[in-house]
Amino acid sequence: MLNFTVGPVMSCEDVIEVANHSTPYFRTPEFSALMLENEKLMLEFLHAPAGSRCVFLTSSGTGAMESMVMNILNGDDRVIVVNGGSFGQRFVELCALHHRDYTEIKLPFGRTLKPEHLAPLAGQGYTALLVNMHETSSGVLYDMPMIAEFCKQNGILLLVDAISAFLADELDMEALGAAAVITGSQKALAVQPGIAVAALAPAALERIDRNPEVCMYLSLKEALVNGVRGQTPFTPAVMTLLQIHRRLTMIRDSGGPKAEHERIKATAEAFRAGIADLPLKCFSETQSNAVTALMPAGKNAKEIFRVLKDEYGIWICPNGGVWADEVFRVGHIGHITKEDNQALLDALHELQERKIL
Amino acid sequence: MLNFTVGPVMSCEDVIEVANHSTPYFRTPEFSALMLENEKLMLEFLHAPAGSRCVFLTSSGTGAMESMVMNILNGDDRVIVVNGGSFGQRFVELCALHHRDYTEIKLPFGRTLKPEHLAPLAGQGYTALLVNMHETSSGVLYDMPMIAEFCKQNGILLLVDAISAFLADELDMEALGAAAVITGSQKALAVQPGIAVAALAPAALERIDRNPEVCMYLSLKEALVNGVRGQTPFTPAVMTLLQIHRRLTMIRDSGGPKAEHERIKATAEAFRAGIADLPLKCFSETQSNAVTALMPAGKNAKEIFRVLKDEYGIWICPNGGVWADEVFRVGHIGHITKEDNQALLDALHELQERKIL
Repeated sequence: MLNFTVGPVMSCEDVIEVANHSTPYFRTPEFSALMLENEKLMLEFLHAPAGSRCVFLTSSGTGAMESMVMNILNGDDRVIVVNGGSFGQRFVELCALHHRDYTEIKLPFGRTLKPEHLAPLAGQGYTALLVNMHETSSGVLYDMPMIAEFCKQNGILLLVDAISAFLADELDMEALGAAAVITGSQKALAVQPGIAVAALAPAALERIDRNPEVCMYLSLKEALVNGVRGQTPFTPAVMTLLQIHRRLTMIRDSGGPKAEHERIKATAEAFRAGIADLPLKCFSETQSNAVTALMPAGKNAKEIFRVLKDEYGIWICPNGGVWADEVFRVGHIGHITKEDNQALLDALHELQERKIL
Repeated sequence: MLNFTVGPVMSCEDVIEVANHSTPYFRTPEFSALMLENEKLMLEFLHAPAGSRCVFLTSSGTGAMESMVMNILNGDDRVIVVNGGSFGQRFVELCALHHRDYTEIKLPFGRTLKPEHLAPLAGQGYTALLVNMHETSSGVLYDMPMIAEFCKQNGILLLVDAISAFLADELDMEALGAAAVITGSQKALAVQPGIAVAALAPAALERIDRNPEVCMYLSLKEALVNGVRGQTPFTPAVMTLLQIHRRLTMIRDSGGPKAEHERIKATAEAFRAGIADLPLKCFSETQSNAVTALMPAGKNAKEIFRVLKDEYGIWICPNGGVWADEVFRVGHIGHITKEDNQALLDALHELQERKIL
């Protein structure tokens, strides 16, 4: 199967090979050394400021989102949440569940955040802002420099979900002044799902140290303490961490994150050029390189997903909820070759001839 | 490397092969069908009572331990915790963190629970009991029928951590009247780490439904709702779940859990017979088939671990904390052949000649 979802995505042969063994024992100096290198490379790739740390949780991205809300924020915070889709809504629900005092900026699905949304919240005593840099459900990439500037001017802690943006879109933690950035193993890192990554700048570390523990399993404090010696408090998804190591060193040795970002951008642009003649409307006001969200004119998105899966051996990414029949997404992350991209374009053109698209 | 730890353990070729691919997309009817079969087989293997459900969390075993404390128990419970080692201590810490009213039965390390420990707690209004069926840190297997009888007589909800006992020791959820049993992917299931499994009898399901949500990521309510259609609320460790499916169907097709249990028991017995002439003291008052905890007479346990790793290509399982220099453990779970067992016995005898053991 060819996989054009937004994750889990296709892995390259070198990464797959890592998991083609029994899982090694991990309470060893050898595994610790590898984990310390994972931390170092992640911080480098994110341009994290001096004194930052990075931890690896055995969880989905949602586990890392919740760990930020539980460990970095507390009941005294006043939080702005940008809610432009399923993942913004998840931050809203997490703030409600953990009794964080929050104000939601609710955007119409597919629309981006503009300065006029933030302006009324300036100087109002807000202390933190939660944003999904790329709202994966709608394909919208938010204007991070604009958001970062607002946070700097208002002394607001910036917490970034970059789960599907890391490596796909430009991301400089220090330039943004972000206190925390999270990502996941199955997006542009392009390894198995099972690991979420949290990079923490000193401003976040200081809060984690000070805040009371809410949940042992998702405790960033425990993860940080164990991470000093390259270990995790609980048995981690070892194979996924080994694959992350292989992938990070491969990226380092082939041009770094900038080259990876350019590769993904080129894949996205080739796809977008290739569908220009198809009756597909780009759904997102601003686009991430990670994904293209599309609205087929008068055709059913779920049916297009099904036919591509069952008849062409191609997965695209269906949408859930109220947009399930109207929107589908095509991912540009993972090990996608030019030939793979062309195979999808050919299939979509054939669907047009068959009047399914 | 030969791996005789208590997890992650060695996997058979068929299971390894499952991960030797890119991760498939999982929001599909195909993956749902596989997950529903995973649930069905787990409940069968555990002899779960009618109306039980089983969910799969992307976490370590500790995630499932905490999910029981958060989702099944509440602030009105009065909880007995059997604490005979690191994992009993973890339940104590989880109860403290989540403000559960608990009483700890603290056992000396390596000793088992006896009726006289429980007797004073009868008729005292306790509502729940947390126990690590096999206290993995000390190798002690508790007398589960005795504990179950106490719980039945006193109307106490029995919550069982069988993380390292499942498939290794006899376990009949219905006979025990257990409300919940948890296990993990990297123990006798012998696949990659990354997934914890929670089997929930109606008594637990009713409480989960009634209790307020404490944590979104570890919510059993969310897992149960999504599990009805064979899905998970968040992106799971897909490869580990596919490996679990391969392994469960292999066990089903080769004699079921009883045959698996007999195989592990035979491996343990062969090892124990083979070390009878060595200066090693069995450390556990009662033994699980999953592991043998050993105390080398006058030699350093950590050094034995190191030499076996660096010079023989064999991992045994070191102990942490205050017992690190005095106790090591040998696991009998995972894909261990007779030849593997013999290789370890030969190495241990050579260490004796070299006066390291």
